[in-house]
Formats: sequence, C-alpha cells, structure tokens
Amino acid sequence: MLGFPRLAGLPAAYLQQQMREFANGRRASPIMMPIARALSPRQIEALATLYASRAGRSSGTGTLAGPGSDADARSGAGHSATFALGERLANRGRWNDDVPACVQCHGMGGSGVGSHFPALVGQPAAYLQGQLRAWQNGSRDPGPMGLMGAIARKLSDADVAAVADYFGTGAPAVPDLQAIARSRPIPAGLPAQAGATQPAARTFNPPPDAAMPAGEMGQTVRLGEQIFDNTTQYAPGYVGNRLRCSSCHLDAGRKANSAPLWAAYVAYPAYRSKNHHVNTFAERLQGCFVYSMNGKAPPLGDPILVALESYSYWLATGAPIDPNLPGRGYPKPARPHLPANFKRGQQVFIQHCALCHGADGAGQNAEDGSMAFPALWGDGSFNWGAGMAGIGNAAAFIQANMPLSQGGTLNDQQAWDVATYMDSHERPQDPRFLGSVQATRAKFHDSVDSMYGRRVNGHLLGGGSVPVH
Amino acid sequence: MLGFPRLAGLPAAYLQQQMREFANGRRASPIMMPIARALSPRQIEALATLYASRAGRSSGTGTLAGPGSDADARSGAGHSATFALGERLANRGRWNDDVPACVQCHGMGGSGVGSHFPALVGQPAAYLQGQLRAWQNGSRDPGPMGLMGAIARKLSDADVAAVADYFGTGAPAVPDLQAIARSRPIPAGLPAQAGATQPAARTFNPPPDAAMPAGEMGQTVRLGEQIFDNTTQYAPGYVGNRLRCSSCHLDAGRKANSAPLWAAYVAYPAYRSKNHHVNTFAERLQGCFVYSMNGKAPPLGDPILVALESYSYWLATGAPIDPNLPGRGYPKPARPHLPANFKRGQQVFIQHCALCHGADGAGQNAEDGSMAFPALWGDGSFNWGAGMAGIGNAAAFIQANMPLSQGGTLNDQQAWDVATYMDSHERPQDPRFLGSVQATRAKFHDSVDSMYGRRVNGHLLGGGSVPVH
Repeated sequence: MLGFPRLAGLPAAYLQQQMREFANGRRASPIMMPIARALSPRQIEALATLYASRAGRSSGTGTLAGPGSDADARSGAGHSATFALGERLANRGRWNDDVPACVQCHGMGGSGVGSHFPALVGQPAAYLQGQLRAWQNGSRDPGPMGLMGAIARKLSDADVAAVADYFGTGAPAVPDLQAIARSRPIPAGLPAQAGATQPAARTFNPPPDAAMPAGEMGQTVRLGEQIFDNTTQYAPGYVGNRLRCSSCHLDAGRKANSAPLWAAYVAYPAYRSKNHHVNTFAERLQGCFVYSMNGKAPPLGDPILVALESYSYWLATGAPIDPNLPGRGYPKPARPHLPANFKRGQQVFIQHCALCHGADGAGQNAEDGSMAFPALWGDGSFNWGAGMAGIGNAAAFIQANMPLSQGGTLNDQQAWDVATYMDSHERPQDPRFLGSVQATRAKFHDSVDSMYGRRVNGHLLGGGSVPVH
Repeated sequence: MLGFPRLAGLPAAYLQQQMREFANGRRASPIMMPIARALSPRQIEALATLYASRAGRSSGTGTLAGPGSDADARSGAGHSATFALGERLANRGRWNDDVPACVQCHGMGGSGVGSHFPALVGQPAAYLQGQLRAWQNGSRDPGPMGLMGAIARKLSDADVAAVADYFGTGAPAVPDLQAIARSRPIPAGLPAQAGATQPAARTFNPPPDAAMPAGEMGQTVRLGEQIFDNTTQYAPGYVGNRLRCSSCHLDAGRKANSAPLWAAYVAYPAYRSKNHHVNTFAERLQGCFVYSMNGKAPPLGDPILVALESYSYWLATGAPIDPNLPGRGYPKPARPHLPANFKRGQQVFIQHCALCHGADGAGQNAEDGSMAFPALWGDGSFNWGAGMAGIGNAAAFIQANMPLSQGGTLNDQQAWDVATYMDSHERPQDPRFLGSVQATRAKFHDSVDSMYGRRVNGHLLGGGSVPVH
C-alpha cells in the first residue's frame, strides 16, 4: 500500500538485476540503495532465488480473485472512467502514440514473461505508479533497449494512475473486450515524443471501438476482434501454432504499415500471383490460416471467416475502395548495398530481437501459459508458405514495426540482414510441398527473397526439422 | 441508302400503325402521307400482313453477316470512335441522362421485340438517323408513352449519327463487351432535359468501363459484367428463369436508386433479418440466385460469385465503406392515403407497364430469342422469396425506375397500387416452403407487404400455378 513491491514469484534474474542497479545507482531508492550496496553478489543471488521460489500473485478474475471479486465487479458496465482507461491501455495500448498494450510484453493479465518482463498484477498500485514516474523522470534505468523509459514518457499523469490502478487492484486474467468496446475512446495522450514513429497523418484512421454497431452485426464484429487477438482460443482446429493474427497485424489490425485490416479489406478481390487467380477477401483470410497460422483453412462461409471479414469491414468504415490505400501492408525498405548476411543478421537479432523472441527464436510464453512473444522459426512458427517467410516481407515488417513500439530503429541493411537471419532457419514445411525440396522451391520459391531449398550452415532449408542455430 | 426503310419482316401491327399515322399527319413524310391517305384500312392491313410475312434482316455477326464480315471487323480493336460511341449507346445506353440502351427495348442486336419495338438492324442508317431527327423536331409522333420522343431529345447529333450507323451497317448479334470496355468513355450528351430523373449529383459515380484494370483482375471484372447482363448464358445451372441481374439493377448495376452494386458492395457484411445472421457480400449474391433468379446458389468460391463480387468491387472503386451510401437500394415511396388496391393497380399496369411486360405480365422475347422484357409474374418470374415479391420493394423500384427511362412517372398511390397488382399474381414457390402455405406465410411472409398466402380473386397465392389474371 505504501509502494513497496511484492517480490514473491518475480524472476530471480530480474530481482538480481534490480539489486545491482540499486547498488550502482541506475535505480534510485533511499531505502534500497544502501541495502543493495551492503550485500555481496552471492547474498543477492540467494535472496533472489528465495523470493523467486515463493508463490506469486496471479491475476484477478478467474484465478485468485475469482468471479464476483472486486476486480470482476469493476470490469462490469458500471466501472469507472479510470478503470476503463487502465483496462484499455493495459490490453490495447495506444498505438497512435506507439504505446503497446502492457500485456503484449508482460503477458495476458499482466502475469509476467520470462526474466525481463515481471508480473504487474499483484504489485501495489502505488509501486507501479512510482516506477512509471521514475522512468519518466529518469531516476530508474530505462531498462532493456530503453523500452520502458520511452513508453513511460508517452503516458500522461492520468494514464499512469489508471494503468497502475488497473494492475494494482487485480486485473482480470482475460480482459473484457466487450467492456473495452463499450468504454469511451481513450483520451489523447501527451504530445508526441520526438522520434516516435507515428503513422503518417495521411493514413486512414479506423473507427474507435466505441463506435462498434449494436446487435448481431456488433456481436459478429466483436467476435472477429476476439478471434484476431486470441486466435488459438477462438479458432481451434484451424491453427497449427500459437501465433495470433495480431502478432503480425499490430494494434489488432489497426496499425498503418503493419498490414492493417482496413487497407486489406478495401484491396480485395484482387489477383494474387501466389495462386494465380483473383482472390476474394475471404480466400485471402484462408491463406493466413494455412500459412501464417500453419493450420488449415476454415471453409468459406464458416462463422470464423465471416466474423473476421466483418471485423475487417467495420475497421474500414469510411475508407475508400482502393487497392493502394496509404498504410497498406508494410513499406518495403530499399535493398541495401551489401548483400544480406546471416552473420550480421545474427548480431542484429541478438541486440534487438532476442530479448523478447528468445535467442532460439522460439518466442516466450507468459506465466499464465498464454503466448506472449511469437516464435520466429522452428516448429511453433509460421510455415515456409507464409508471407513472412519471404525475406522482403519480413524486412519490411521488421523495419516498420520492430522492436515493438520502436519501429524505424533498424536501417535498411540491418532490416534485410536480420530478416535473412530469421528466414535462414528451419520452420514447418510448406503445405504445398511437392515431394521434394527442389521441386517445391522451383514452383513456389524461385525468388531471391526465399531461403527455402537453400543450404545454410550445412542444412538444406525445407528439408526438415533440425536443431535451431 | 436514301433513307427508305426496309419493311420486310417488321411487325404487321407496327406497319399498320405507321400507315395510320402517315394518314393522320402524326408522322410526316411528303411521299408516304398521300399514299397512306389513299389506302383503305383493309388495304393497309393486307399490305402490312404481306410485308410482315417476308424474311427480315437479322443482326450482323453470327447471323447473316457472319464472322469476318465488315461489322465483325469494325467491332475489333481498330474500330472508329463513331462505331465505339454507337456500340456503347446501343448496348449500354447513357444512364446518367436516363438514356437506356437501344437493345433494352429493341432486343439483343436490335433484332426487334413484339409489335411496338421494331427491328433496328437491317434498316438503312439514313432512315434511322432521319427518324431520330423526326422525333427530335416533333415531326414524328413520340410513340407509345412518348418513349422515343423523350429519348431522341437526349441525343446529340454525334449520338444520332453513331447509333444510326451502328445498326444501319449491321450490328453484331452479341455486343463485344470487351471492345466496349476498351473504348473511350462516352462524350457528354446534351444538357439534361427538364424533368429527366437524373441521379442526384451527390450520389457516387462508378468508374467508366475504360478504367477497368488489365490482366487477370480485369478479365474477372469483365466476366462479372457479362454474367450480370447475360445471366442465363453465363451462369447456366444456377438460374431458373430468364431474368438478368440487370433486370432489376439497371445500367449493369451502376444506376443510383436502382440497387446499384457499388452501394451494395460497401454495405456488406451486414445482418439480414431475412436469414437472421450476418451475411457476407458473397452470401448476399447467393440469395439473388435462389430467389430473384429462381435458381440455386453457386457454392461459395465459385468463379461466378468471385466474378460478380469482383465486378461489384471494381464498380465501387473510390466509394467509402458505408452501409448507407446515398443511392443504395430503391428510395421507398411514402405509404399512400388509400390502401393499395388491385383494381387501381391493374389500370396503372395497363397504362404504363403492359406495353413492355405484356398484358399477361409474362414479359417479351426479342426476335433473336433472347429475353427482352422480364416476366413480372408467372412461371418465368422471380419466386415468392425474392425481394421484389415484397410490395414495398416493388413499389420503390417501380417508382424510381419505371417505365424504363421514365422513372418518377408514378405517384406514391400509383406505385403502391401497381406493385400490389403485380405481387397479387401467382409466381414460383418460395424455396423455403414449409409444406403448407399457411406455415410458410407465418414464418417468412408475416408482413403487410406480402401477398403470399392471401386469397385474391378466389386464388390462394403461393398455392400453385393458376391462369394469370
């Protein structure tokens, strides 16, 4: 209540790191700094291990707090404007300012992810608020890749209070998207920070959740949004990995230059060289399931496709029918002067990507078991037929949008290098496999942009699972 | 060549009518007027019967002229601007000025329809040009319902020359839609006539044919247009009558307030009370085949549906996603003060509708066998499940668009009366038939707008085929 954090259940590595930063002054605390300096590294390690081993506090509704708890009641129709703001920032972010949702890194319900993204739920609101302020005023190290420092500086006082209160008083394990949809649009945040990669003012703005229609159409649109953000849960049987649609289409399909749904919707039907005929939007959606989700296509007319099409349609409200709407897809970076290179790409990956996606590219789950960071290669990733398995597409997505909330960080060379590195690892077979890698490459991957069928570090890509590099 | 018309094969009733008009001065001709006055009615009848019995001239390509003829060569890529203008006016009209295509009344290839719409093909260009000028300057009676007088006055000198030349030199039996699509947009016609029911300037303008994309997408769009206008030919197996999509969606789906495709495209997915769920555009198209075309639905993903969806998408280029675009559907007239009445409706029908649709409502075919005017009831019409079997829909369509090129002619009372008359006749069974008319009415037609299950002149509507009234 006074702003002292709960330590039980936090990752040992995270706790040790904080103690080191209290000791060296990169994290300020009149109480903790002298204590941290008085402890030896072995003592710090022992304490961190002790606290990490204790049971932490899980998220609210459905776990410790359970239905009918205060948190549950607050998420109902009568909850306060502060709660609604916190709920929205926590679960949706404010991508117009490049503020990701808290749960994108800290896991569903703020349950925590790995060693670098501690649980938020169960921490006192006063502590969370204090830390966001510390990042704002520079008295706490901005953290890995400066992520939290940059994000905190985009939050207003009201934002800080709301999000701290949301997690501090027991966030629901699963956000109530319908409540979020009913709530008022988020107030504008602070003025844009210098260097923030905001979508150009010219790009289309999809309508706010609060404008969702009522009745059956509204229910279908909301179902589409839920499928989009929790694909494994809402489209079981059609997904072969644990990715979400929103893994590649940020801000639940709203973000310009991150393959927004509104731009895709108004661009179909269209001819696709991928399958040599005119595809409707529904058929295009099927492709995502087959390739990016490494699953199988829901049949045309399936409620899953209808809901996703309805959600996309609604996001496009007011957009003109136009196959080339600004903001569509990903803006492709220029080909760099040096040929893309695996080794240089590996260095970029270690520096900018591994924190979230893991050194093995396998992604990370949250403490509650949900997928937090998608697998970039390996059995749990998109397959060789996915658009993201094309180096050009991957370079474009990465440069525009990665690291999360820091799009525009990589130069053209870095983007192509790291995309080449990513797509030089084994991943699930192309579902169009013709029986041999050579034939499949000739028919579907005969492009400088595809590593399929090429040999990297002795392994023939497309030839089957191997230990990741 | 000097402007004397070919008489052989023209309808006897038409020939007699013309002779009577030469005699009474409503049609001016220094040569024919004295001759007509010198002949007795029996002599005129005998002459008309004689000429009508002689073989007429059919349309060009594919019939008399055959492939490789002059007409065929002219329809190729190198044809003149005059030919292109004539071809377009003949086959597409210029609906922005409420000028219908010539072939809509005179039949495919200008082959002629019934007693009132004589063949155009095979008449000398000089004759056709002379008659259009006569209608323009009032020296020829404007014809039934004043149709030709009003249309001719909307044509420029260039229009008149082009369309006369097109038919006078042997129009192709089947227009070359691809050539039309390649041709330049039609030049603007004369200034709008007073009283012309032009679409409001605020409504969306679909792109001109000439803007159709190239490549596979263009082919698919053009196929959609062909299906739309020649549905029986291009969607065999899925239509149970001889209507065209363009029978209800005028100007090939372009005309505002005539259920234009561009407005429908941007309005789906949407919830429909008709089937109690959210329908995609593709599912909505399926409904047209099942009900309006009294056929069966092409399966989702069928090239017919993909082509129609692509054509609709392309017509909507630049239109905003908006379920309520101005011009959508038909503007519903106010309910009149007097309850709609069968007998009054019958009088309206005889005066304004029977000329084209026939006193028996069965429509008319052109001399070449193609459907010219759609059947409004009876076995060859849309079935009881079609939107047009709802009196409100029918009244709206009729008031906005009928008689062809004279939309806005009927007042609210007349529109509701004639719609009630039309929908008080038997037509094919509702495909959702539940085994009894009563049960089917209760579930699907429980509306003041449906005559299904009601008894008219002793017949239970929906109860099966009966002689038309």
